[in-house]
Amino acid sequence: MSGLDWIAVDWGTSHLRAWGLAGKTVLHHAQSDLGMSRLTRPEFEGAVLTLIGDWLPSGQVTPVVACGMVGSRQGWVEAPYRAVPCVPMSGDLVAAPVRDLRVSVHIVPGLKQARPADVMRGEETQIAGFRELNPGWDGVLCLPGTHSKWVHLSAGEIVSFQTFLTGEMFALLSEHSVLRHSLEGWDEAGFDAGLQQGMERPERVLARLFTLRAESLLNALPPDVARARLSGLLIGAELAVAKPYWLGQRVAVIGEDALALAYKQALERLSVPVSCHDATATTLAGLAAARRNLPEDVRSCVN
Amino acid sequence: MSGLDWIAVDWGTSHLRAWGLAGKTVLHHAQSDLGMSRLTRPEFEGAVLTLIGDWLPSGQVTPVVACGMVGSRQGWVEAPYRAVPCVPMSGDLVAAPVRDLRVSVHIVPGLKQARPADVMRGEETQIAGFRELNPGWDGVLCLPGTHSKWVHLSAGEIVSFQTFLTGEMFALLSEHSVLRHSLEGWDEAGFDAGLQQGMERPERVLARLFTLRAESLLNALPPDVARARLSGLLIGAELAVAKPYWLGQRVAVIGEDALALAYKQALERLSVPVSCHDATATTLAGLAAARRNLPEDVRSCVN
Repeated sequence: MSGLDWIAVDWGTSHLRAWGLAGKTVLHHAQSDLGMSRLTRPEFEGAVLTLIGDWLPSGQVTPVVACGMVGSRQGWVEAPYRAVPCVPMSGDLVAAPVRDLRVSVHIVPGLKQARPADVMRGEETQIAGFRELNPGWDGVLCLPGTHSKWVHLSAGEIVSFQTFLTGEMFALLSEHSVLRHSLEGWDEAGFDAGLQQGMERPERVLARLFTLRAESLLNALPPDVARARLSGLLIGAELAVAKPYWLGQRVAVIGEDALALAYKQALERLSVPVSCHDATATTLAGLAAARRNLPEDVRSCVN
Repeated sequence: MSGLDWIAVDWGTSHLRAWGLAGKTVLHHAQSDLGMSRLTRPEFEGAVLTLIGDWLPSGQVTPVVACGMVGSRQGWVEAPYRAVPCVPMSGDLVAAPVRDLRVSVHIVPGLKQARPADVMRGEETQIAGFRELNPGWDGVLCLPGTHSKWVHLSAGEIVSFQTFLTGEMFALLSEHSVLRHSLEGWDEAGFDAGLQQGMERPERVLARLFTLRAESLLNALPPDVARARLSGLLIGAELAVAKPYWLGQRVAVIGEDALALAYKQALERLSVPVSCHDATATTLAGLAAARRNLPEDVRSCVN
């Protein structure tokens, strides 16, 4: 495989994605659902080699740079958290033990914050990548997802961040709660209504959840309106509480999917200057920045 | 079976309880986990007869009075909601179709509220029973549970009520969310701390959920403290939002289990006069009140 000189890996709780690269050029891409939560420690090496084995040049050691939950205590090897305030990416990658001599594996540490207690793994790489792609940018990053994060970037450092369980809460309520019978589809106006309710009275969300169920029973509330309103309620409550992050700032949302666009739309209604950015591109740029921190003799395929 | 003249049934989403009575005296009791959610319409009769069949005098029709989700659209027969404001118990019980000639089955309707939309099934019977046991009592009832309810009683009528998803949320978060790894046991001081946080800043609950996880990862927060703090956070947020109910009122909590005592303790800290009441006794008293509304010729075992 001519040209391949390193491999980038994004390894979260529920997914594994790998790219074979020549510098910044993607030569190969593969993914699987063998996330960290499905693997025991001895299984990590095999899981990634299944994806990337065919890409590896023989007689050389190819560096693999990985971020995400793969570096957690239950991961391949624990990469201890670095403490904020700090730059999003540093040189202290942690080597994972490997048996296959064709690879060396380097894991990006996550970040921690003392008060209020908070952690991230994977997002620090996206933040580093965003800075690579937008040099000199200061402001607030919003990373929507199962555990959405708000990050205050100043002078190239992560000053503080805060995680919200919003995405996971939406999944739990729509799949496992009494509301699951009442939710299906999507209605834009329903999202707007929920967003406004959540923003104005975030403390009432717990009470408004059952109202959705009752409106469905009593008033035949359409399930697409109910589902979008639930999402709006939760995101609205998050935005209300995250106000110290976005107020008077510009916000970059990492992601361009429906969820990211929902956050963008909500922020625009609050007159916040906001832009959306490709999540995969930021991850790859972050992993490339991590690779640059490797010692020169392991940074590329070496004999 | 000498003396039995009617049967009381409390039939919720996940449980079925039956009592055989002579007037107010309990002669028999049985229960099963064949809640409404596990049954299709034709299966209800068999499910209850399995419990009560042996109690039934032969050659007579024994009245069965039932409350709860058994009267919902997915239940044995739909008992349409009555609208508040109204007295908690009226005469319009709904007869369920039966094949076994030894029983007649009468189902208590639930209650509905137009704005904010809300519903109850089963609690109206407890409220009626509470009024039976505490004649002339006015004030606020708190019914903790999966879906806790606050009820404003005035001059014997239910004026308004509000349902909170607090109990279900605690179950979802402690069994299905990322927090499940960090929660086990109970610590009283942890509950108090959570309660105070939830009361003071109910809107921050969504943010504080992930803090629990992070404190467990970073500071080895003991799992009993984390679990009790989560419960305190959710109940505290509920109390903050339910303030228009309890402020300047006396509150009767229906229940004497750990959850009911937690609500009592929390309300006492707010200097609210509060008492706890046996839940089963209130249910039985409510079903007895419902029975009194039956026509005289079906109220007791008849030939």
